[in-house]
Amino acid sequence: MGKAIKRIGVLTSGGDAPGMNAAIRAIVRTCSYHEIECMGIFRGFQGLLDGDFEVLGPRDVNYIINKGGTILKTARCKDFRNPEGRKLAYNNLKSAEIDALIVIGGDGSFTGAMVLSKEFDIPVMGIPGTIDNDIHGTSHTIGFDTALNTVVDAVDKIRDTASSHKRLFFVEVMGRDAGHIALNAGIGAGAEEILIPEENMGLERLLDSLKKSKKSGKSSSIVLVAEGERIGKNVFELGEYVEENLPEYEVRVSVLGHMQRGGAPSCFDRVLASRLSVKAVESLLEGKSNFMVGLLNDQVALTPLEQAVKGHSPIDKELLRVSDIITI
Amino acid sequence: MGKAIKRIGVLTSGGDAPGMNAAIRAIVRTCSYHEIECMGIFRGFQGLLDGDFEVLGPRDVNYIINKGGTILKTARCKDFRNPEGRKLAYNNLKSAEIDALIVIGGDGSFTGAMVLSKEFDIPVMGIPGTIDNDIHGTSHTIGFDTALNTVVDAVDKIRDTASSHKRLFFVEVMGRDAGHIALNAGIGAGAEEILIPEENMGLERLLDSLKKSKKSGKSSSIVLVAEGERIGKNVFELGEYVEENLPEYEVRVSVLGHMQRGGAPSCFDRVLASRLSVKAVESLLEGKSNFMVGLLNDQVALTPLEQAVKGHSPIDKELLRVSDIITI
Amino acid sequence: MGKAIKRIGVLTSGGDAPGMNAAIRAIVRTCSYHEIECMGIFRGFQGLLDGDFEVLGPRDVNYIINKGGTILKTARCKDFRNPEGRKLAYNNLKSAEIDALIVIGGDGSFTGAMVLSKEFDIPVMGIPGTIDNDIHGTSHTIGFDTALNTVVDAVDKIRDTASSHKRLFFVEVMGRDAGHIALNAGIGAGAEEILIPEENMGLERLLDSLKKSKKSGKSSSIVLVAEGERIGKNVFELGEYVEENLPEYEVRVSVLGHMQRGGAPSCFDRVLASRLSVKAVESLLEGKSNFMVGLLNDQVALTPLEQAVKGHSPIDKELLRVSDIITI
Amino acid sequence: MGKAIKRIGVLTSGGDAPGMNAAIRAIVRTCSYHEIECMGIFRGFQGLLDGDFEVLGPRDVNYIINKGGTILKTARCKDFRNPEGRKLAYNNLKSAEIDALIVIGGDGSFTGAMVLSKEFDIPVMGIPGTIDNDIHGTSHTIGFDTALNTVVDAVDKIRDTASSHKRLFFVEVMGRDAGHIALNAGIGAGAEEILIPEENMGLERLLDSLKKSKKSGKSSSIVLVAEGERIGKNVFELGEYVEENLPEYEVRVSVLGHMQRGGAPSCFDRVLASRLSVKAVESLLEGKSNFMVGLLNDQVALTPLEQAVKGHSPIDKELLRVSDIITI
Repeated sequence: MGKAIKRIGVLTSGGDAPGMNAAIRAIVRTCSYHEIECMGIFRGFQGLLDGDFEVLGPRDVNYIINKGGTILKTARCKDFRNPEGRKLAYNNLKSAEIDALIVIGGDGSFTGAMVLSKEFDIPVMGIPGTIDNDIHGTSHTIGFDTALNTVVDAVDKIRDTASSHKRLFFVEVMGRDAGHIALNAGIGAGAEEILIPEENMGLERLLDSLKKSKKSGKSSSIVLVAEGERIGKNVFELGEYVEENLPEYEVRVSVLGHMQRGGAPSCFDRVLASRLSVKAVESLLEGKSNFMVGLLNDQVALTPLEQAVKGHSPIDKELLRVSDIITI
Repeated sequence: MGKAIKRIGVLTSGGDAPGMNAAIRAIVRTCSYHEIECMGIFRGFQGLLDGDFEVLGPRDVNYIINKGGTILKTARCKDFRNPEGRKLAYNNLKSAEIDALIVIGGDGSFTGAMVLSKEFDIPVMGIPGTIDNDIHGTSHTIGFDTALNTVVDAVDKIRDTASSHKRLFFVEVMGRDAGHIALNAGIGAGAEEILIPEENMGLERLLDSLKKSKKSGKSSSIVLVAEGERIGKNVFELGEYVEENLPEYEVRVSVLGHMQRGGAPSCFDRVLASRLSVKAVESLLEGKSNFMVGLLNDQVALTPLEQAVKGHSPIDKELLRVSDIITI
Repeated sequence: MGKAIKRIGVLTSGGDAPGMNAAIRAIVRTCSYHEIECMGIFRGFQGLLDGDFEVLGPRDVNYIINKGGTILKTARCKDFRNPEGRKLAYNNLKSAEIDALIVIGGDGSFTGAMVLSKEFDIPVMGIPGTIDNDIHGTSHTIGFDTALNTVVDAVDKIRDTASSHKRLFFVEVMGRDAGHIALNAGIGAGAEEILIPEENMGLERLLDSLKKSKKSGKSSSIVLVAEGERIGKNVFELGEYVEENLPEYEVRVSVLGHMQRGGAPSCFDRVLASRLSVKAVESLLEGKSNFMVGLLNDQVALTPLEQAVKGHSPIDKELLRVSDIITI
Repeated sequence: MGKAIKRIGVLTSGGDAPGMNAAIRAIVRTCSYHEIECMGIFRGFQGLLDGDFEVLGPRDVNYIINKGGTILKTARCKDFRNPEGRKLAYNNLKSAEIDALIVIGGDGSFTGAMVLSKEFDIPVMGIPGTIDNDIHGTSHTIGFDTALNTVVDAVDKIRDTASSHKRLFFVEVMGRDAGHIALNAGIGAGAEEILIPEENMGLERLLDSLKKSKKSGKSSSIVLVAEGERIGKNVFELGEYVEENLPEYEVRVSVLGHMQRGGAPSCFDRVLASRLSVKAVESLLEGKSNFMVGLLNDQVALTPLEQAVKGHSPIDKELLRVSDIITI
């Protein structure tokens, strides 16, 4: 076991997600509770290279639990991929007397943290913060629940106009590699079909399904499409293709875009962020390192970062079946 | 003056807007208050041609004041542009013993109502329902206020992620011919620049303004773009152009799309819809015809439909100036 | 095992909760998927006694997934506690050829279902629908997540005014017997203290904590109080007591009340309701009876109704500790 | 005319209201636009006495346009009512080289500003900021529109549970002296009756109205009650009285409370606050003093503070009539 930890650094990295500020707040205050210091590192790994640090006390994180985004900012950092970059980062940590590092982000961010930890023997801990929910070792990532509510709220609005005009809408949501948002929000919004990267239903089955939907007496339809769906057409091409092949439908397309990343976090995400963050700090103080703190079976649980990065976060096939049944 | 009105028909036409249901509810109940009948006509003028009518009583419009969309549905109708189509419509009205017609919609819908009224001497009244606020004779159209809140709420979310990443966002909002949404929501969302159909600021001034904005120390920026802006590039081209010419900016584009038309109406829109609708029914009962009921100087006021259709609804230059000043 | 099930009855009972409509929709459609009929029973057990039934098809539950409340209504029913009442209920079920019953509600509702099932050998299934989350056999009841977001959103608003005036607010939330809402929403809203039925912190410790909070430099404070807290004073008396004993605080009290039961359900509650409901219908079709369908370890799971009714749903002590730490 | 103004002080006073931050932001930036300084004064008139000032530049008001409350805080101040207090205030203004003062608040705040201006010849300007909308000289006060949406959103939630249980709810909203909130939100929320300070409908008429409402087939009812209604009973007594006299109703009471003051301002309030604030600064620079900047006939307009304070802001009788008609 290493020396006693007196100062912990924290950074947010990758895409921002609602609840990151709740995590930062909890980390800062847990440090204070255990009478150690917390150092905020700005703009992710880039700030590590630039030495862009600031001591954060309990009052510096007042009134941020309900704010979207991240007060520490986030950025991409190419230089951190080079050994020289990481050497510089480590030197900055050392100069600032930071004894351990907590990284809030996704897979890529965790990989960065692991490499740094291996090369320079600094304790690190990961907290899963991304709206995509595509991280192994946790049932929920911070921001996922909020993004679902944002999507469902937007699709509820689109449903108003879809049903007034008796239209078919293709709505694209985030999820380049994972369909968690599309699948859950699709069920929540009552989408007639859901297209996700994990399953290629094929164009024929889509057309069949939409024909059946029309016949069943539905006057409007929503198809929720994950960015990374693999049907072979982007969402605009898909809309055109369907309108050509199913002239009984008037088709519209909407891409929800970046608003999915923002907004006040849901209660679920605030509580999740708080729980994971307390555990992250306390695990470091117990001498642990190289773990991700996640939620498994409703309990806070540690997963080795290496597993978290390599593992998959498959979609729940039961949900696909539920969706099929209840859109009859 | 014509014969006593015993039954009034109501239809919604054109794009749907939040608050249309509040208007339908108020029309139905005002009819009931004055002991006449109200007949709902489905799918706009198309329903007029199809005889798609249903008597609506006060209890049929329970619990709809807070619902987006329109329970009467809306649709385009080509056949209504032909004299034969309108003849058919009139015959249907006559068969159903509908003595007068209220049309909730925009310019196009009002024109249809006027022509029908001229050709067949049936009393008509227009109520401005569109999110675009581009109708002469009313300071606010039904749905405009709600759409502003929807846009501002979405841009608040985008701001979270924009400021976390220090990015520049171009956000496209509705408004093909009018910049009311972009201008008001731009001020409300604190947009650094606002591009509207009524003003072509030119690419050079846009670049200058964004450069200045960066220099002033702002870490993120939002440009609100109305669909119909006249700078000569669509919003995606615009984003690319700016990224090429201002490499200091990381640019993203978001098109808010159809969610702007839906959602629970704001209190303002519910009250507005109720006020205009009571007046529409009572004006018909007083023997008036061919007017639009609007809000002028905070008072319900009638404008001849002909003027409403021909007139302009210019943007308020004071607002442009306010926007320039407060985004310094 | 009994005879084949051809028609399932469904009722909602007890306090209504957001997501009940999503459950009704999923039950109706799962019945349709398995080609059996679904019969809606209005006003809970009272409707069972009154024979207030209506066949529900897939299109009858369009556009209700996002509506708060319950389209089947709910009511208290004294007569169902008498054998005569239950006999009448059973006869009505038999006349209507209802072969099995699904009850959406809480403990009391489940007890009613169990008794009926024992006395008349009719298969029953329970689905936990209540905002209080106080049911054994499920980590989440339908409506709990939505209520948390409603409370947190309201307290965020109160925080705005609390911090502008530097005040201390006591905010009472629902929870007569269980502190789940207060505890989770308290963490989510950043409440300085949380008073719940499961723990009596005592007046002295409350005063100490508030004194400490003031000293730590906080300018405003929120104390979240569950209805059933056991400190011995109601929330208004508590406010007065604190104001008398801590003159440095200006105290206000707010009772959130019934708005906590309403509103559009969160995505979480819609998905939860859909999953549990599919399972409830399919379990009946598999010949199972007298179970509650819940969520355990993120998986849909059956618990005998008898256990569900007798068991406890204790608060998570970890959450109390998290709350203590992060409000430092 | 006085000397050139080089530094303007701004304070918020009285109850906070959503949009006050949007006003502060616009004042700071308009000062910057005109190349003068802005000095923020904390905690209202109390801060004036304490010399609690801080120079605010354009970047100090980033990201506050969408925040409820007031970053300048607000407080009551008894000492300002004494000549000695005001003398001290003036001396502090002079020491800080503040040449003019903008007060954002209500009647009481304006009176304070006027007295100070008279006694010490310092130019003052008032901006109406209160959710109550009870100020003469403006059709809308800053915060009113947001409060209406907050109330309507809460009552929509209560309606969900009211209609599920077929109950009658008495919902108390803010408005000690004025019924603007109750009247407008009552129409917007579809309240069956509205009790306001300006009209005493009497208990008999209330009972009659509720009886009629029941007979008309409505299954749930909402009565919106302004704090200052004059029927002679508080809202809880009223609920009991009605339950005793109309046993066909199951009555519940909800007091919305302080959440009505908070929350992100609506687009309307943000635009209103921005417009009034630009005008307030520019009017001072033109040498004007002792005016309130308001909105009249949709245009920014000045009203002498003396008139603003003395005048009434009567409710619109047309709205009462609209409410009667559409709740039939």
